[in-house]
Amino acid sequence: MRRKALDSGVVLRAHVKTHKTIEIARMQHGGSTGPITVSTLAEGEFFADAGFDDITYAVPFAPGKLERAAALARRIRRFNLLLDDAATLRALEEFGTPFEVFLEVDCGDHRSGVDPDDPRSAALAAEIARSPVVRFAGLLTHAGHSYHARGAEQIRAIAAEEGACVTRFRERAGIPALVRSIGSTPTASLVERFRDTDEVRPGNYVFFDAFQAAIGSCSRDDCAATVLATVIGSYPDRGSAIIDAGALALSKDLGPDHIDPHFGYGVVCDLDLRPLPVRLAALSQEHGRIETREPLELGRRLRIIPNHSCLTAAMFDLYHVLDGGRVVAEWQPVRGW
Amino acid sequence: MRRKALDSGVVLRAHVKTHKTIEIARMQHGGSTGPITVSTLAEGEFFADAGFDDITYAVPFAPGKLERAAALARRIRRFNLLLDDAATLRALEEFGTPFEVFLEVDCGDHRSGVDPDDPRSAALAAEIARSPVVRFAGLLTHAGHSYHARGAEQIRAIAAEEGACVTRFRERAGIPALVRSIGSTPTASLVERFRDTDEVRPGNYVFFDAFQAAIGSCSRDDCAATVLATVIGSYPDRGSAIIDAGALALSKDLGPDHIDPHFGYGVVCDLDLRPLPVRLAALSQEHGRIETREPLELGRRLRIIPNHSCLTAAMFDLYHVLDGGRVVAEWQPVRGW
Repeated sequence: MRRKALDSGVVLRAHVKTHKTIEIARMQHGGSTGPITVSTLAEGEFFADAGFDDITYAVPFAPGKLERAAALARRIRRFNLLLDDAATLRALEEFGTPFEVFLEVDCGDHRSGVDPDDPRSAALAAEIARSPVVRFAGLLTHAGHSYHARGAEQIRAIAAEEGACVTRFRERAGIPALVRSIGSTPTASLVERFRDTDEVRPGNYVFFDAFQAAIGSCSRDDCAATVLATVIGSYPDRGSAIIDAGALALSKDLGPDHIDPHFGYGVVCDLDLRPLPVRLAALSQEHGRIETREPLELGRRLRIIPNHSCLTAAMFDLYHVLDGGRVVAEWQPVRGW
Repeated sequence: MRRKALDSGVVLRAHVKTHKTIEIARMQHGGSTGPITVSTLAEGEFFADAGFDDITYAVPFAPGKLERAAALARRIRRFNLLLDDAATLRALEEFGTPFEVFLEVDCGDHRSGVDPDDPRSAALAAEIARSPVVRFAGLLTHAGHSYHARGAEQIRAIAAEEGACVTRFRERAGIPALVRSIGSTPTASLVERFRDTDEVRPGNYVFFDAFQAAIGSCSRDDCAATVLATVIGSYPDRGSAIIDAGALALSKDLGPDHIDPHFGYGVVCDLDLRPLPVRLAALSQEHGRIETREPLELGRRLRIIPNHSCLTAAMFDLYHVLDGGRVVAEWQPVRGW
């Protein structure tokens, strides 16, 4: 991803919410610090402590978090906030800290962000540009709807619109200095080269997961984070086995159920990451129920490729880093808010 | 629950996996320590450190955890393990620690446990009883299928079978000294009095949640754990608003979707816990998307009654304890495995 961003002449502002570790964030920047995106103030503080000094907090900002955000902004070179409404702008102005501000634009996901075709959106952009307090840094969009795609062709179409949408809106707003920030793992993974953008913010690509493999962002062999589990019950008579990884170890994300409603809660593999012909059918807090007519040996170790690696990784206090099947390091993520 | 157990002449061995705090475990025993159930060895160690000395680890035991389990068993008066197969029994015997052992019996949930009507199950009971190493403490069952019920009548029928099943199996095994241990929150909440049992292990009842209210274990007013969230986006034109509580704050548990497939990811309430006529339709990592045609004021605080309080509570490092709307204490749960 770093190579593609360099070749495209755009900034990689990797989203670190997937892994939440200093070590991987540095790997994403070739071994040093660099621009990052965070999803919580706790992440912002953790990465600032480790020397990351250009951070975008890419969730619409709530003024109740101003004191803490301002304290973080004072410590680092750039702390960029996200907004999509005038009320938040006014709250920032009243508070007085000269935050860098991105305006969120909705490129089709319809989660947050302003409608780029609504004249009120250009008016809001003009209002931010006139602000005597904040600095208008850029336009940010997230093509979250790429997660609903059913294959590479649909994802590439969304990728084209992602950049085109912020570019069009920047022209409409008439502020050519604005940075265009785009990025979702499906779109960033499937384009040959980044176009119509100045920076990209993919996150999940560091691990990928069963979901990304199903929609075509990657192959299953690209999945880099797994949960080690042990068979603790085998009931071939009733067609099932139990592992000691449940909803707290894996998360209850349904994965690519828009493609396969019976996908299950992750891909069950042996230690060499060869998938077993079984389905992880149900999760309770600490039990995972596998459908299988073949008995699974009690005590057998399995590795589960999670449906959604961001949610699964956040359940653990430690990564065991494998190289050639041996644990070579342990990395600690930040957690909480 | 404690009063009902006392009146019924049975032991309350509350499952502490729901809250994972010393403070609530003590409340469950009238202010002191008492028998508890745990779902992880980390919980066992945490509660042992706080003086709880009679602990059942109610997940089928994996022999790979023997060293750690033995270290815990040496520290406390009773550490009870769960098994449902002869291979685990042999592993325990080879290891040599005189663990107390419960045999898990399947009363209809079909997750784990032996089939009480299969002659091999009585043979396994006889084998445990003859063991020169472990002590056969009792029979344990979990009526997890009560979670699929659609109301109080179905839950009460499952409750009756829960106790009857272990009682029948104890007779078949011919070992009258075995403790019969039952318990799920739906069944334990809806019986007037515990019958056909010696101890009960409900857990979720300390908080209840939107799911338990929907299936009839409790009323919505009984729900005691909520997540405080803030409105960070309002888009009445597209019929939605966004809060800063997503999948990591709430868990992606679908709740009572067998009763209402459109239930959503929790019940959105005002600060006084009055439900709003809106639906929490989607969660991404740090965003919750509410369907609403009415604008929600930016910065407004909401409380979300979670679908599954056990999973939601486990996402947090701290409880803020409210009394009359004021925070009167902070409690720290244990986490991890």
